Amino acid sequence: MEGHGSQGGFTLPGEAGYEALTLRLAEKWGADVIRDSDGTALSAEILESGYDIYSTICIIRNHNEWAKKNPDKQQQTFLMTPPETAVSGKLEIHLLGSFSKEQFAVNDSPEAMVYWQVYDRTLNKELGRREWDYDSERKSVSISAVPWHKYTISFLAYRIWEEISMYNHKTNDWDTEHLMQIDPVHQEVQSYMLNWMQEWCESHPHTNVVRFTSMFYNFVWIWGSSKRRQNIYTDWASYDFTVSPAALGQFEKEYGYALTAEDFINQGKLHVTHMPGTRKKADWMDFVNRFVVSFGKKLIDIVHRYGKKAYVFYDDSWVGIEPYGKRFEEFGFDGIIKCVFSGYEARLCSGVKTSTHELRMHPYLFPTGVDGSPSFLEGGNPKEEAMRYWQAVRRAILRSPIDRIGLGGYLHLVEEKPDFVEYIAEMADEFRNIRELHRSGIPFVLKPKIGILHYWGSLRSWSLSGHFHETYMHDLIHLNESLSGLPFDVNFFSFEDVKNGALERVDVIINAGYAGSAWSGGDSWKDVSVVEKLTEWVSKGGSFIGVNEPSAVEGYDTYFRMSHVLGVDEDRGERVCHGRWGFETKESLGIIPKGADVKKKEGIYLTDGKAEVLLEKEGLPVLTVNNFGKGKGIYLGGYEITPENTRLLQNLILYCSGEPLQQMYITENLYTEAAFFPDEKALVVVNNTAQRQETAVIVKNERISLELEGYQCKILCV
Amino acid sequence: MEGHGSQGGFTLPGEAGYEALTLRLAEKWGADVIRDSDGTALSAEILESGYDIYSTICIIRNHNEWAKKNPDKQQQTFLMTPPETAVSGKLEIHLLGSFSKEQFAVNDSPEAMVYWQVYDRTLNKELGRREWDYDSERKSVSISAVPWHKYTISFLAYRIWEEISMYNHKTNDWDTEHLMQIDPVHQEVQSYMLNWMQEWCESHPHTNVVRFTSMFYNFVWIWGSSKRRQNIYTDWASYDFTVSPAALGQFEKEYGYALTAEDFINQGKLHVTHMPGTRKKADWMDFVNRFVVSFGKKLIDIVHRYGKKAYVFYDDSWVGIEPYGKRFEEFGFDGIIKCVFSGYEARLCSGVKTSTHELRMHPYLFPTGVDGSPSFLEGGNPKEEAMRYWQAVRRAILRSPIDRIGLGGYLHLVEEKPDFVEYIAEMADEFRNIRELHRSGIPFVLKPKIGILHYWGSLRSWSLSGHFHETYMHDLIHLNESLSGLPFDVNFFSFEDVKNGALERVDVIINAGYAGSAWSGGDSWKDVSVVEKLTEWVSKGGSFIGVNEPSAVEGYDTYFRMSHVLGVDEDRGERVCHGRWGFETKESLGIIPKGADVKKKEGIYLTDGKAEVLLEKEGLPVLTVNNFGKGKGIYLGGYEITPENTRLLQNLILYCSGEPLQQMYITENLYTEAAFFPDEKALVVVNNTAQRQETAVIVKNERISLELEGYQCKILCV
Repeated sequence: MEGHGSQGGFTLPGEAGYEALTLRLAEKWGADVIRDSDGTALSAEILESGYDIYSTICIIRNHNEWAKKNPDKQQQTFLMTPPETAVSGKLEIHLLGSFSKEQFAVNDSPEAMVYWQVYDRTLNKELGRREWDYDSERKSVSISAVPWHKYTISFLAYRIWEEISMYNHKTNDWDTEHLMQIDPVHQEVQSYMLNWMQEWCESHPHTNVVRFTSMFYNFVWIWGSSKRRQNIYTDWASYDFTVSPAALGQFEKEYGYALTAEDFINQGKLHVTHMPGTRKKADWMDFVNRFVVSFGKKLIDIVHRYGKKAYVFYDDSWVGIEPYGKRFEEFGFDGIIKCVFSGYEARLCSGVKTSTHELRMHPYLFPTGVDGSPSFLEGGNPKEEAMRYWQAVRRAILRSPIDRIGLGGYLHLVEEKPDFVEYIAEMADEFRNIRELHRSGIPFVLKPKIGILHYWGSLRSWSLSGHFHETYMHDLIHLNESLSGLPFDVNFFSFEDVKNGALERVDVIINAGYAGSAWSGGDSWKDVSVVEKLTEWVSKGGSFIGVNEPSAVEGYDTYFRMSHVLGVDEDRGERVCHGRWGFETKESLGIIPKGADVKKKEGIYLTDGKAEVLLEKEGLPVLTVNNFGKGKGIYLGGYEITPENTRLLQNLILYCSGEPLQQMYITENLYTEAAFFPDEKALVVVNNTAQRQETAVIVKNERISLELEGYQCKILCV
Repeated sequence: MEGHGSQGGFTLPGEAGYEALTLRLAEKWGADVIRDSDGTALSAEILESGYDIYSTICIIRNHNEWAKKNPDKQQQTFLMTPPETAVSGKLEIHLLGSFSKEQFAVNDSPEAMVYWQVYDRTLNKELGRREWDYDSERKSVSISAVPWHKYTISFLAYRIWEEISMYNHKTNDWDTEHLMQIDPVHQEVQSYMLNWMQEWCESHPHTNVVRFTSMFYNFVWIWGSSKRRQNIYTDWASYDFTVSPAALGQFEKEYGYALTAEDFINQGKLHVTHMPGTRKKADWMDFVNRFVVSFGKKLIDIVHRYGKKAYVFYDDSWVGIEPYGKRFEEFGFDGIIKCVFSGYEARLCSGVKTSTHELRMHPYLFPTGVDGSPSFLEGGNPKEEAMRYWQAVRRAILRSPIDRIGLGGYLHLVEEKPDFVEYIAEMADEFRNIRELHRSGIPFVLKPKIGILHYWGSLRSWSLSGHFHETYMHDLIHLNESLSGLPFDVNFFSFEDVKNGALERVDVIINAGYAGSAWSGGDSWKDVSVVEKLTEWVSKGGSFIGVNEPSAVEGYDTYFRMSHVLGVDEDRGERVCHGRWGFETKESLGIIPKGADVKKKEGIYLTDGKAEVLLEKEGLPVLTVNNFGKGKGIYLGGYEITPENTRLLQNLILYCSGEPLQQMYITENLYTEAAFFPDEKALVVVNNTAQRQETAVIVKNERISLELEGYQCKILCV
């Protein structure tokens, strides 16, 4: 696959009608692969130009003809109407009132209606079937109500517009037919798809790689009827879009119990990935994953039979694929492609067990960026965007290898942005240089090994649920992003892992998040053996870094279960009359870089007065260190990624592990970072800012000083 | 009692050795009463000067001789050692390690040790009696421990230094004997006290009023052994200092069940008044109240037999007196005296069912103020303090009458502060003028009647638990303080009251506080009938004003149980992936005065998009109005008292009740306020600021303009 030219490792989005541009840029950017995109096609001229060809297929859509004949084979979801208050003994609720009628249609078939539920949300109690009536003309439910109680209807709806296509339509003002999506849970769909896949392979002789986007079930994306709330719910890792009476029936047979609408609806909250799951959710995820792998494999086998490779795009309809799940390798995928804005996404991709790891860089070649920037419109600055994204991703790629990068979208948009074109060429070269270094051997890491502890463990390595701009409100994504480019080994542990010996493999455990979240851990902290293991481990020399509301759970003498290790706890009013320990802040160790900043968390207090307060805000401790046996407990009120805080994190990890803060291969200037590849004796130094920086790195006994232009990357032989 | 001079209604603290000063200031300030204070005495010259005499007695202390002979009759409390983590199978915990040894001594008598408890706080489980040993020499407990679990000991301790005396000692560097305190739960103490009271009356012929400070049990005040945490726990309304094996035994007999140490210790959190109580706590409070009233009455009867009056000081050892409890009138007190910094404290005093209501003003004549100001030291400005306190109190006295005011402490301290002496004379005159107006009839109030809804209801009318500076972190104290001087009828309701028809008596309900607190209501909101009643009442025209986390409780579809009325709810992470309603802020009604400010509460979202957002902060709604049936739900993210916010509150109350914001007897300038006494046709206008203000008030068809000097009070005949 690296046949074309001496460069390679780059995937270019081609575009029919812009053949000259396609081939010129393929040359300039060192591409070895040309791909199509949603909304673009490749012409014969491109297909036959000698480049490898990726063809994007989204197996569940683009079958409108068949879907129209089989509307009951469309994908579904549970929906709950917003609560409505009864003012008399009768209440009529319209099912689709608040939902997008372009996206949903009520499934009122008998097999679906079995799953419908009407709830008195004031009493938190389901109504009996005789207490409500469905009017299929009006698509409404009438309830025998208790006045002043509020009610909801949970029902099944077909999803009649494939969500990614819907998003692309809306974003680009497309005026084409709405693409429907079909559900392979049905035998008929499976037969149809297998047949379709075979025909597709036969009719695409030029395709070298079939790029699945992705498998069958999209992450959840519920649109509303009001312009004031177009997005009702989006969660990159929730399984709500996998349900159907057929699947629910199969589940019941296999697991010996039935799931109800409420198991998904969860009082209208649904089960966001940022909260701990339940046993039932775990079973359902397992069930879906097993199905997606087993049927997915059949499609991949067909691709392989035609001598083509199968890559999976790790976004969109990725639900049930679970690249960090135990069954992923069974698919037989030859590669994985991840779209990235951030370093942690590169690490996410890099860690998947497959042959080829490719990053789809940003900005996507769409007029408007995902974050609303006018990327390729007038006033847009795609070069600046590309530089920022590359800076974030580059520091991660320095730590863990990536095989390929690429772009997607409408290539012709770059014609108006020549500096973008130049920069992508530079970036591609930089990428290939780093890739080359990784081929020589693994880069140097500092001694402390880190474990991130949360509910999902390794299943949600690096990512929480989607992109940074969707999850910025969680401390952990900031920590993951900082860590993605730091020279540490990082592992992701669940609470079960802790019970099964995971602590022996690490020096530092980080637990970060707000109370009740999956990232803090919620009820997992009620497990006494988790507390015992961690306490003993810290006592014997480990370090526990807690951020925001670490180990928080109700029902005990302290809110933080690890308060004895941290030396701090959080008062939520129960101790508002309790005196607080006075303290003086001291920090003489150089741990806190100038400009580092730790958020204040209300209610934090010193438990026994022994923790040292390194930073305080408005009288509250925000950064503390507590000696516990031979180990340490470190508390931070919050964590936000900045260059200064990234260095603070590195310092804290080194400090609590008894390591010097300044040692070989660490840059003196925190706005720059270094990676050392011992086998090549190569020192890579990057400037993470747009400004020129001076920095220095100690290598053996020598202090190497250097200057870097904004965002520059230098590779030195040392 | 108003015999001396034409003025009266003023209590002066006399001081032996400063007879001339005492009599001069009695004349100047229009005093009709002279009192003694803790640390001062009155000489014969003062006692015989013709003024009425108040004598302060603290019935439970000043009996050291007897107490030393009967150390087991001293008062007690439960204490819990701070949690300690076992690093092996054995753990020794010293009982008094973290507590003040001046205040506490372990009670290890057999009858006390029955109540001791050792807890594994990691498991949240009590250890059996065989799993621990007590070493009475070392005053420590040895535990058969599970390594890495943490343990606490709950035990009974004698309180060997009466806390108010301890505080006065520490504050004033006294070098006198530590006063002990005895517990009238014992028959021997009762006999001793009754006898002492009788002898006291006989030996104090000049005393007209016996001022009890207060009855038997101090509010909780636990001192620590470390200078870095002198105050471990203070709660003005908690009952922890009422326990003893004797009382616990009697309780068990009367209520048919036994209380344990844990019922008070509550995992070390104790039961702060700001959190909802429990059934057991309610029983205990009832038990103590019954005892305090029944034995207190015997002492008061003696006082009355000697032709003297009995007043109670509503602070210090006030616990169990409960002036808003159902038994208070049974005491037979002739008056109540409240020390005040704030308007709500004046209302608290005014509302008690007794003949005479007296305020002890601030600053107290101590060198250093309660808030640490150098009041009567060099650099202190007691006049300025007095003006500020009087401003806060005056607006409350304008709404609800007070019979007397006075001062306390060392009179000689005022010698160095002549402008203070002048100001007190002015203040006393202003007070007497206002008192006179109230005698003519009740002042005008605006139409809406207000109910404050919280766990404690009328039992905790106006005060939450102590002074403003101790409770400033609670929204409700700010609301109470604003309301204390606004022209509205204000009632305090419990959730039981709501169920029993209280809503019929009001137009507006206010529920304000953080989740789980007594002020928000906590689990009381699980009572469906409370939600039903309130919903129906709003639907029919009532208004529900929720502040911070109103009606918040876990377990339902929304966190705020009244979210359907408010149109807002709080997301605590479960909805972090849910879309939010966009909104525009609009406020065209003039509700929000310039300078008004509402705090942001994280996680607040519009439930159905229908609430109008009047104010937003950083994209979050902070002040919203939702129409619900014929009524309204109003949400504020928080409430802090300022003149601007006080007017905002008044406007919101008028607006939601359909009343015009500007009407008769309301000042145009919000830094001034007015009270109208219809019977006297007197309009009182006060300036609440230190700056000169121009203002105007409409009376009938006339707009009366006037100017007021800083803090001035004008009374106009209109």
